Amino acid sequence: MEHKRILVVGLGLIGGSLALALQGFENYEIVGSVRSQATYHKAVMRAVAQRITFHPEDELPQADVVILCQDPAGIMDFLQSHRNRFKPGSMVLDVCGIKTAILDAASCLPEDVDFIGCHPMAGKEVSGIDNADSTLFRNTHFLVIPGPHSTQEHLALLERMAAHCQFGDVVRTTAQCHDQLIAYTSQLMHIIAVSVCDSDHLLQCAGFEGGSFRDCTRVAALDVPLWTQLFTLNAHALVPVVVQLEQRLHQYRLAIESGDRETLSAMLSVAAERKKQLNLERERGDDIHPQFQPLP
Amino acid sequence: MEHKRILVVGLGLIGGSLALALQGFENYEIVGSVRSQATYHKAVMRAVAQRITFHPEDELPQADVVILCQDPAGIMDFLQSHRNRFKPGSMVLDVCGIKTAILDAASCLPEDVDFIGCHPMAGKEVSGIDNADSTLFRNTHFLVIPGPHSTQEHLALLERMAAHCQFGDVVRTTAQCHDQLIAYTSQLMHIIAVSVCDSDHLLQCAGFEGGSFRDCTRVAALDVPLWTQLFTLNAHALVPVVVQLEQRLHQYRLAIESGDRETLSAMLSVAAERKKQLNLERERGDDIHPQFQPLP
Repeated sequence: MEHKRILVVGLGLIGGSLALALQGFENYEIVGSVRSQATYHKAVMRAVAQRITFHPEDELPQADVVILCQDPAGIMDFLQSHRNRFKPGSMVLDVCGIKTAILDAASCLPEDVDFIGCHPMAGKEVSGIDNADSTLFRNTHFLVIPGPHSTQEHLALLERMAAHCQFGDVVRTTAQCHDQLIAYTSQLMHIIAVSVCDSDHLLQCAGFEGGSFRDCTRVAALDVPLWTQLFTLNAHALVPVVVQLEQRLHQYRLAIESGDRETLSAMLSVAAERKKQLNLERERGDDIHPQFQPLP
Repeated sequence: MEHKRILVVGLGLIGGSLALALQGFENYEIVGSVRSQATYHKAVMRAVAQRITFHPEDELPQADVVILCQDPAGIMDFLQSHRNRFKPGSMVLDVCGIKTAILDAASCLPEDVDFIGCHPMAGKEVSGIDNADSTLFRNTHFLVIPGPHSTQEHLALLERMAAHCQFGDVVRTTAQCHDQLIAYTSQLMHIIAVSVCDSDHLLQCAGFEGGSFRDCTRVAALDVPLWTQLFTLNAHALVPVVVQLEQRLHQYRLAIESGDRETLSAMLSVAAERKKQLNLERERGDDIHPQFQPLP
């Protein structure tokens, strides 16, 4: 069987976990690329990939699949700098949490390089190769935005890679739809977590917290440079979602302040019913919205 | 050894779990009190207590410990209606999530009845006896507000009961301090969860959610009559906490909207550092704030 190669650029939490999870995938050799000596040594010690390099640009002409796992600015720089070094016919992926800006940047690639935007809906509240874990993707969603020239062969290959990494499903969508929904399901959760942690009460409340507090604030210790990029690059979709939350909190607060139990009870009933409906849909396994079809 | 009796009034999620967790505690018989035939049958089937009754008032004169597990209005009504039926020298507890209003209501009791406000920081996103679980309290905080005449004997008994139920610790505080911190650590988390679920995006986002979304919205399917009472009875403490969150969200939104990465990055750094500090304190086991001493 012909020997093929996957190059994973950046071995942080996601890149390191992907390299580990892809071990043994078909006839592919996994090559990892790092920038720091510290990450290099950790990657070698943990055997995160079959080979580790400091020079991804030298690997590009031989790489059948390239997975870009840097931060958004790193991905965009890399695409621009190396746009003519990718192997013709190769599949290039990224894994970052915004897609419109990345797919725009990828339009600099030659037509015979197939760029597919990806977003594994997996993470941890800690980052870096130290926390890389081959099981990170188990039962999570793998969001996929095909490019204008993506081939069925590449989409099928991506599907097999996702299965090997134990993703729960592969959800195909558009960059715009992705960025709008992620603003709500992911970015807003991070803004809530940091906003809650900004309170003076935070460091007084030890002993008074339950599961809901630990859950809501879990992601607050975030990677600041990464999330600064993610939030600002998706400001267009994120701002209206934050505004909507501000308004809704304001409405709840007015109902509580006025002691209007009837209004408050009616508002809580609607929200609780919506959450129950969502839970029921999940239990039934209707986890994929009809407008987003899994890959064939 | 003398035979003693604990009466648990109300066998919902918390009361049912407490009755189960207290099985085998020293020389105490556990009696449970219910209002509906449906709960009665479930309680008998699951042997939630050694005896189940529809008439808690008849048990009061013989109960050495009474644990009131109704909703706030139910507890306040019960105290008022039966204030002269409690056994002299008995210890009376409640388990609801607000304390100032409950301790005020308990001031109607005779001086020889020792009322101690309690709040187990445990829960589930579902309610009722069907979800009662003897392990619900494992490693959670048990908040305790002694009354003006609480005896060392009763506080020591409460400590032993908490250990039997496998609480992680017992944290003594005041009603005012409890209500202020709970507004932040618990009530605000529930208002956030319902506010997020009020968004139009909720039922479109299946396939796009990760752990942070599931965690943050987990408690949104709340018990509406209960939380309507909890929120309005604690409006004094809760409103400023919601206002503070509204303001903080607004500040993050302005930084994102303006594209001011420097300001946004500085804000995120402060919040992330605060969360890391909290995590470190937890790892070191400094979980009890110096101002709140565990019971002796």
